[in-house]
Amino acid sequence: MQMGVIGLGRMGANIVRRLLQNNHECVVFNRTLEKVKQLVSEGAIGTYSLDDFVQKLDKPRAIWLMVPAGEPTEQMVKELAAKLDSGDILIDGGNSYYIDDIRRANDLMQKGIHYLDVGTSGGVWGLERGYCMMIGGSGMAVQYLDPIFKSLAPGRGDILRTAGREKMGGTAEEGYLHCGSHGAGHFVKMVHNGIEYGLMAAYAEGLNILHHANVGKHNRVANAETTPLRNPEHYQYDLNLPDIAEVWRRGSVIASWLLDLTAIALLEQPDLSGFEGQVSDSGEGRWTIAAAIDEGTPVPVLSAALYQRFSSRGENDFADKLLSAMRFQFGGHVEQQALKK
Amino acid sequence: MQMGVIGLGRMGANIVRRLLQNNHECVVFNRTLEKVKQLVSEGAIGTYSLDDFVQKLDKPRAIWLMVPAGEPTEQMVKELAAKLDSGDILIDGGNSYYIDDIRRANDLMQKGIHYLDVGTSGGVWGLERGYCMMIGGSGMAVQYLDPIFKSLAPGRGDILRTAGREKMGGTAEEGYLHCGSHGAGHFVKMVHNGIEYGLMAAYAEGLNILHHANVGKHNRVANAETTPLRNPEHYQYDLNLPDIAEVWRRGSVIASWLLDLTAIALLEQPDLSGFEGQVSDSGEGRWTIAAAIDEGTPVPVLSAALYQRFSSRGENDFADKLLSAMRFQFGGHVEQQALKK
Amino acid sequence: MQMGVIGLGRMGANIVRRLLQNNHECVVFNRTLEKVKQLVSEGAIGTYSLDDFVQKLDKPRAIWLMVPAGEPTEQMVKELAAKLDSGDILIDGGNSYYIDDIRRANDLMQKGIHYLDVGTSGGVWGLERGYCMMIGGSGMAVQYLDPIFKSLAPGRGDILRTAGREKMGGTAEEGYLHCGSHGAGHFVKMVHNGIEYGLMAAYAEGLNILHHANVGKHNRVANAETTPLRNPEHYQYDLNLPDIAEVWRRGSVIASWLLDLTAIALLEQPDLSGFEGQVSDSGEGRWTIAAAIDEGTPVPVLSAALYQRFSSRGENDFADKLLSAMRFQFGGHVEQQALKK
Amino acid sequence: MQMGVIGLGRMGANIVRRLLQNNHECVVFNRTLEKVKQLVSEGAIGTYSLDDFVQKLDKPRAIWLMVPAGEPTEQMVKELAAKLDSGDILIDGGNSYYIDDIRRANDLMQKGIHYLDVGTSGGVWGLERGYCMMIGGSGMAVQYLDPIFKSLAPGRGDILRTAGREKMGGTAEEGYLHCGSHGAGHFVKMVHNGIEYGLMAAYAEGLNILHHANVGKHNRVANAETTPLRNPEHYQYDLNLPDIAEVWRRGSVIASWLLDLTAIALLEQPDLSGFEGQVSDSGEGRWTIAAAIDEGTPVPVLSAALYQRFSSRGENDFADKLLSAMRFQFGGHVEQQALKK
Repeated sequence: MQMGVIGLGRMGANIVRRLLQNNHECVVFNRTLEKVKQLVSEGAIGTYSLDDFVQKLDKPRAIWLMVPAGEPTEQMVKELAAKLDSGDILIDGGNSYYIDDIRRANDLMQKGIHYLDVGTSGGVWGLERGYCMMIGGSGMAVQYLDPIFKSLAPGRGDILRTAGREKMGGTAEEGYLHCGSHGAGHFVKMVHNGIEYGLMAAYAEGLNILHHANVGKHNRVANAETTPLRNPEHYQYDLNLPDIAEVWRRGSVIASWLLDLTAIALLEQPDLSGFEGQVSDSGEGRWTIAAAIDEGTPVPVLSAALYQRFSSRGENDFADKLLSAMRFQFGGHVEQQALKK
Repeated sequence: MQMGVIGLGRMGANIVRRLLQNNHECVVFNRTLEKVKQLVSEGAIGTYSLDDFVQKLDKPRAIWLMVPAGEPTEQMVKELAAKLDSGDILIDGGNSYYIDDIRRANDLMQKGIHYLDVGTSGGVWGLERGYCMMIGGSGMAVQYLDPIFKSLAPGRGDILRTAGREKMGGTAEEGYLHCGSHGAGHFVKMVHNGIEYGLMAAYAEGLNILHHANVGKHNRVANAETTPLRNPEHYQYDLNLPDIAEVWRRGSVIASWLLDLTAIALLEQPDLSGFEGQVSDSGEGRWTIAAAIDEGTPVPVLSAALYQRFSSRGENDFADKLLSAMRFQFGGHVEQQALKK
Repeated sequence: MQMGVIGLGRMGANIVRRLLQNNHECVVFNRTLEKVKQLVSEGAIGTYSLDDFVQKLDKPRAIWLMVPAGEPTEQMVKELAAKLDSGDILIDGGNSYYIDDIRRANDLMQKGIHYLDVGTSGGVWGLERGYCMMIGGSGMAVQYLDPIFKSLAPGRGDILRTAGREKMGGTAEEGYLHCGSHGAGHFVKMVHNGIEYGLMAAYAEGLNILHHANVGKHNRVANAETTPLRNPEHYQYDLNLPDIAEVWRRGSVIASWLLDLTAIALLEQPDLSGFEGQVSDSGEGRWTIAAAIDEGTPVPVLSAALYQRFSSRGENDFADKLLSAMRFQFGGHVEQQALKK
Repeated sequence: MQMGVIGLGRMGANIVRRLLQNNHECVVFNRTLEKVKQLVSEGAIGTYSLDDFVQKLDKPRAIWLMVPAGEPTEQMVKELAAKLDSGDILIDGGNSYYIDDIRRANDLMQKGIHYLDVGTSGGVWGLERGYCMMIGGSGMAVQYLDPIFKSLAPGRGDILRTAGREKMGGTAEEGYLHCGSHGAGHFVKMVHNGIEYGLMAAYAEGLNILHHANVGKHNRVANAETTPLRNPEHYQYDLNLPDIAEVWRRGSVIASWLLDLTAIALLEQPDLSGFEGQVSDSGEGRWTIAAAIDEGTPVPVLSAALYQRFSSRGENDFADKLLSAMRFQFGGHVEQQALKK
């Protein structure tokens, strides 16, 4: 099947490669021509302007956009809208906010253009493992592109089958799913990422407890500002975190792909000294909380995970200073740090 | 190798079975004789009193305790301490508080008895998948029992090897690990369960957001006490949760064993109407938070997960009533629920 | 000074009364005529249609809107916009979302109408105590209406002066403040309410701990699903909560007006049995979190307070059921509640 | 009445002063003699050894200990126990863990010595405002010392009386309260401090939102790692925090003594640049969470407040690095900070 792909960054390029490996025809375009040339050398059909790109595609055109969410995607959708014809299909495979999808889909529908929002998970491992895809939009367009989704998805693999699935149809077991109407794909992907933040924070907090399990060995300054540790003999463990992450990978309740990656990271560098701990957040975690609040759904865990990222970047500094200032006001407490100087 | 096992509940019986399958000799004892008979019929050597049990074991004896944590374990350790000899090894394979382990190990060491604390994860699936074991105590005793641990553990299986592990020795890849001195096994297992609570809550919160993704379809009473939904058109999705859990199992960043189980549970009963949502917590989640607080390690995610379980059992009712009472005092706000009646 | 007031509910009527008490002239209007008549009997000038209302006001007209936020306010602003003249001042004294203020102010500015957003705190006690007002909009209009704000505000009273304030001007000490441009008043009021949720939750949680301080007296079922209390002798207190709330009112660090109200509520009904604990939330708490997320500001406490309100209304039920379902899957754990039946 | 006071730090010295002001006789002792001399010059009876101190007190002796919690208090209680007689009363007015109180009270009871635990709130302002006291121990001893507590407490003052209190007796309105048996005083004080952490965090978070209300003015780097702010026009406010804290002090729902102190702190130094934001925590906040967990009482707000203090001191650094490490593993995400270098 033919697919046009715009945006040949890490994700886009690998999607082209996986499609080529599955004998699909890929027409590609990218602002930076170098990347086009690279993929042409791997079997793709290169184009060097948007008009060229649109002309080289058979009708009804199928186009996969893989450009950064926000303005870049917004601009590209607008430009393409002017060039496409009724019946064409435009896929946003990036991390757009689902509310933008709803708006765009409604706008494009006026021109008869189908818009699909496809939340794509898999990161740098997707080329090899396949991409988990959550799809929103008209069922007809999804059905039409089924061969594409099937090729990009991981497939059933040797993962243990969920009891009862043998009696059901559907594509969920293949690793892709038509979730619902416009925006549903990115909505589900958004929540997926929200969960991801929560899972990551659960591992990070637990491993941090293990990391501090030897606090009883340290002499802590005892003064009115510092709580002494009542039972230092209970905190005398120097634990091997790379080994612990590894042992949990087999047979434990908390085995997961994120744990696999954690084991890799800790083995590479047990003290993680190559990192500063300023944790970025892309939009999905925030949008997840915003959606939960709109719905009135309590999400203490997912929120705590997001806020920790904010704090890791110093966004709580003013609040912390205010706490010290209040303590100084009511109790004359002077900050410990300040005393050191 | 020979192993004595006391406590033939679900976990204990399956441990015996897995040892028998691996050609170890098992001498078993249980307060309820029926369970002893059952395992004798499967190849174990039955005993019908604690004295009988102790006599039938070769010296140095190796005994695996699998009785409920707290008083039952405490009592059994005391009774055995009086009957065992120097050089014997006593394993607590239950969910003891690691602080009890430290105390017991020190007491037993006076008599020359080795005490190992083995945190065991795997639940009802362990017989088939093997048990992930986190071990605390003297390295010599752990070394001596290596054949037992190896048999109970899952082994490497076909799980992708962590890059760099090929250059290292150790047993972590086999699914068991000597974590450190007395209590270290249950300490690591405790934190493992704390993480488990966090992971479970992350999935539950995320899926709850998806569950409420159709709130825009419902007419909500508009009054001064209720915030209207500003954009009902953004919450019109009736999502298929069993399919979504299934699709995430393949290729996504949040794939995990807990997700596999979630997919099973949701497929069996998509509305989960067979559950009331009163979520129990065994001790490990609480002890994890207590340890974190002693250490001064922040654990907002793991705490939120624990507190949600408390709330699910009505433990926040008084606080909720107090909030309503305050609102009535300052604003004359009357509870919505009360208005209905 | 003359002020037109639309919306004679509890808040609006009391604002009229406080203005009348301070010798201002009030022209009033309300959809329900009964309320107009009542205030006429107390000295206000009644009007019985919006046109009548607009005509009875001197130019430049000053109008205080006190109708429910959302659609009712939106509609009334639109209707008035068509009838007012350049130079008139329209005040939204309700709980509007500040983003709506920004939009409305910009729209009305096209017609030369000044729009002020005034966040008003004080609840049912405001008539007596005065209203704390946070004001957004053009400084000129705020300045023009200064006599009105001064009358409605509490004034300095006998509250201890903040050291250094004697050297400063401004109205903050009077209990009203021009916070900034359009929306700033409701932005500050929004955060005020967000803080209010956090304060209320802090008291509620703390008092709930005191409420449960006798858990050691109860026999708790001991089974594999329930953590036994290790030291029941530490939880033998039957505490008198009304007295404790009362004693904290004098000399303690946590004295506050909310604590005063808590003391009243607990004295009236120590077991709070008249409340069901379904806690409403109006929009400000949610908008506060949304703003914090936009800003990247961590707000774990304010979020937890909001989510507890959601949970109190059953919005976490599905998530709780899912946790029980997962526990059943991996451990065969059956819900305690279910066992009872 | 006569009272012996040991420990003449800030709190202890002021307690002596307030007692002297109320015509009580104070026998004082302190390891550092300088402080004894100072209080002798203010009217106290000085003693220069513990034996001297004990001898100068009339029987039954009443002794107020005001030394740091933990080891210093523990040692002093032991030393005094050897010197006191049956019928004497020993008061721990510090911040002891209530579990230590229960133990000490039981030990001292063997010798007929009464032990009272008195949680004392008021900080550096107590001399002037009076101390809020929460008292645990035998009712008889509390009754005997009533003149002392009455003098130290703030008294009713001009605080508005709680409706219904006029029909009741008791001392709560005076600012001191016999809460229950041994440990009850420090238990209630512990929770008081837990609430204090929550209140402080609520104000700090809210004011931090206001502090960031101008984020829309800053150009934020737009890249794949950073979420762009969708509506910068909504975050254009440069808010005057000292004025906002001040205006909330009058008539608002969130007025409190902590807010009074916040207003002072912000007026003194609006940018709080004199503080580093490393927030200490004394034991009570931690013990509050530990008690809540034992009870099964959910305390998300109080916990979040405690954890933020831990994070402010860098205790989350390892967890943050681990999050960055995971992100690098699955997505090749490189930390923003690292990129800058």
